[in-house]
Amino acid sequence: MIYHAEYAWLGAGTGAGTGVGAGVGDEVAPDVLIETTGDRFTRVVPGVPAPPDAVRLPGLTLPGMADAHSHAFHRALRGRVQAGRGTFWTWREQMYAVAARLDPDSYHAFAKAVYAEMALAGISCVGEFHYLHHGPDGTPYGDPNAMGEALIEAAREAGIRITLLDTCYLTGGIGKDLEGPQHRFGDGTAAAWADRVSALRPAGPAHALIGAAIHSVRAVPREQIQAVAAWAERHAAPLHVHLSEQPAENLACQEAYGRTPTELLADGGALGARTVAVHATHLRDTDIELLGGTRTGVCMCPTTERDLADGIGPARDLVAAGSPMSLGSDQHAVIDLFEEARAVELDERLRTRHRGHWTAGELLAAATTDGHAALGWPEAGRIEPGAHADLVTVGLDSVRLAGSTPGHLAESVVFAASAADVRHVVVSGREVVRDGHHRLVDDVPAALFAAITAVTQ
Amino acid sequence: MIYHAEYAWLGAGTGAGTGVGAGVGDEVAPDVLIETTGDRFTRVVPGVPAPPDAVRLPGLTLPGMADAHSHAFHRALRGRVQAGRGTFWTWREQMYAVAARLDPDSYHAFAKAVYAEMALAGISCVGEFHYLHHGPDGTPYGDPNAMGEALIEAAREAGIRITLLDTCYLTGGIGKDLEGPQHRFGDGTAAAWADRVSALRPAGPAHALIGAAIHSVRAVPREQIQAVAAWAERHAAPLHVHLSEQPAENLACQEAYGRTPTELLADGGALGARTVAVHATHLRDTDIELLGGTRTGVCMCPTTERDLADGIGPARDLVAAGSPMSLGSDQHAVIDLFEEARAVELDERLRTRHRGHWTAGELLAAATTDGHAALGWPEAGRIEPGAHADLVTVGLDSVRLAGSTPGHLAESVVFAASAADVRHVVVSGREVVRDGHHRLVDDVPAALFAAITAVTQ
Repeated sequence: MIYHAEYAWLGAGTGAGTGVGAGVGDEVAPDVLIETTGDRFTRVVPGVPAPPDAVRLPGLTLPGMADAHSHAFHRALRGRVQAGRGTFWTWREQMYAVAARLDPDSYHAFAKAVYAEMALAGISCVGEFHYLHHGPDGTPYGDPNAMGEALIEAAREAGIRITLLDTCYLTGGIGKDLEGPQHRFGDGTAAAWADRVSALRPAGPAHALIGAAIHSVRAVPREQIQAVAAWAERHAAPLHVHLSEQPAENLACQEAYGRTPTELLADGGALGARTVAVHATHLRDTDIELLGGTRTGVCMCPTTERDLADGIGPARDLVAAGSPMSLGSDQHAVIDLFEEARAVELDERLRTRHRGHWTAGELLAAATTDGHAALGWPEAGRIEPGAHADLVTVGLDSVRLAGSTPGHLAESVVFAASAADVRHVVVSGREVVRDGHHRLVDDVPAALFAAITAVTQ
Repeated sequence: MIYHAEYAWLGAGTGAGTGVGAGVGDEVAPDVLIETTGDRFTRVVPGVPAPPDAVRLPGLTLPGMADAHSHAFHRALRGRVQAGRGTFWTWREQMYAVAARLDPDSYHAFAKAVYAEMALAGISCVGEFHYLHHGPDGTPYGDPNAMGEALIEAAREAGIRITLLDTCYLTGGIGKDLEGPQHRFGDGTAAAWADRVSALRPAGPAHALIGAAIHSVRAVPREQIQAVAAWAERHAAPLHVHLSEQPAENLACQEAYGRTPTELLADGGALGARTVAVHATHLRDTDIELLGGTRTGVCMCPTTERDLADGIGPARDLVAAGSPMSLGSDQHAVIDLFEEARAVELDERLRTRHRGHWTAGELLAAATTDGHAALGWPEAGRIEPGAHADLVTVGLDSVRLAGSTPGHLAESVVFAASAADVRHVVVSGREVVRDGHHRLVDDVPAALFAAITAVTQ
């Protein structure tokens, strides 16, 4: 295929493994000819006129975006968990109620709708942090990976790639048994978790990767952390972990082990360049040094961190210390990586009372190049020959972006665009969204409605 | 006209002068018959089938929203002021550059486009905090109110109501002369300001009110505050003032006068139920008591306060103390009162680390009823007989709102809707937006583009 982008952001596509902190540019190139063969880019030439057979992409074209932290089933909570004054307990009660209702069929339909919403928002790859493994009472399904396979198939049908971060979740807190709906999450031991995950093989075309996750130091005891990390090491797989989202976790970890959660993960060999710490909100300076020094990635989920009153994590300090940054919509209060990207900067402004922590290019790199790398797809999230042919075109003709100038398009899109401005999406060479309509899922709102109704009524 | 709303939020319409803190409900009524005559509602009946001649409004219908704090010309800065690392100085330099370029004709075209964007976002009334009074060197135009009149006309042509908050701006800081572009802002003395404003009479139909504003205690010396307050008192007009947006203002005020800005305003008789303090970010407890005790309103502008790194104001404490709350998009980094409304709650969560400070109904009341009251339109912002016939219908058929249930529609819209979801807007009985298209300004993005280009190139 031959595409011709009116403007394209190639900032992260000019070198390998830039890393967010490396001063990625905000530059946007006009008139970019983009050729694809199969699922890859084969030629990218800025500043040339459109050949007659090219598909025109009016607006600003970006690489595909990666939603590096997703709990698909939380999409059912949008709006509902703000009822009344919407306390944390409102949220948790409803989250567990939904978790208890899902089975492989309903989760397949549910995730397909959510991933289709992601595609419409310009997301070409999702990192699904998956722990709804077993039946409601904890009994494994006939196929013990039925739930994970349902998610992989859902992504395929929604037209996006997935890294299934199969999550080890063993305890309901440090030293506490699983309770109620948590029984679904548990494999008993990390070894049993590893056996199950090792049997999981993505079927069909290569749209899926299997990664590992440690739910948190609350849910995986110290002596089991190493086994999960070893599995990820052995499979050269991404390893994600919820880290220090709430001060209560830090406190419990200190009391039980005399270590911070970051230190505990380091002890278990769980930090490193394939690991991503999600949230990383309440850290000591020494934690930041440990994460940055080991090149452990960080995934910020600012709309969730706002929603759950977690606080504002030290994203800038982490990146300065050496951690690449990715972004996640997590509980999907909204699915809009532009909102996540700008929130990283805006919340840092609230925290520090100064502007100017990140360039638009750095934030776009987090949403694209570094996000894909965090999910084990280093050859995606950049518009350059050899990379996965993902394209996301943002229309500049809405009232939100009207008046943007070529010199500031990256800034305009990061700071003012909405997921509603995404017009055209190509994932691994396949056109998934055209003119704002999903080509594989005919009516995404109806699919969401049906899926949510099925698990909430 | 007869409308039939699939759902309508009537929460703030069931009593007079509720005030945000009074526990306004989140309830949404189905099948609401709404009749208008001229510019007013004449009949509102929930729970009845649609008569055949009714205009159907599928989705959730809200009262008109009030954008209680606007600097229309800042719309030119969207995106641009994030260039590079986007420091405060990037912002201020560009803001003054745009301020220097406008004249009555270009400002009319500019504001018309911005107000049309507001209409598309469901805003039926704007509070324009206006201080671009004179020619670039400070010489008054032949008609010294030419700029204000241009704004009033712009609102009329864009189909929304306006409260022109004509702003007294005399000094470039406490004890400092005006400098450079600031010369446009100055009237010399509050008495000269009052003479000019007294000559300002809205022409044409009753879509405009004249209010007063004290730019800030930085720009209006102590001895001149009283004259502005007296003018507002004499005309029973709204009086707005930027208050304690930055700690530097508090410090300068203490050093010069030995008073907080709030105390200085109280000394000048500038607080009270017709006054609105904008931002009110950095306050002492005694300031909060003074504001609440005098029923002085507060206008929160959270997307601006994020953008300018101002910090998070004590909105909840202010309302608890007695201040009604309104919302403003201020510099228009985005024009989306849903985003402003949820940001009040979400930023309070970041500040306190707890959820659940505001109900969706309280936040909607701030955007509608209390916003209009803050602009001197107490008979607007509520769907009830006698009130201005303003209707804003939010479509529930986007991926953002799909899966919302009737029991949680107010929450879903406040926490997940975007201005892009506004489908239908009626202002004072006139249909201004239908199916997302502005009926009076044919191509709003093109109008924005032309207006912004004219003052930035």
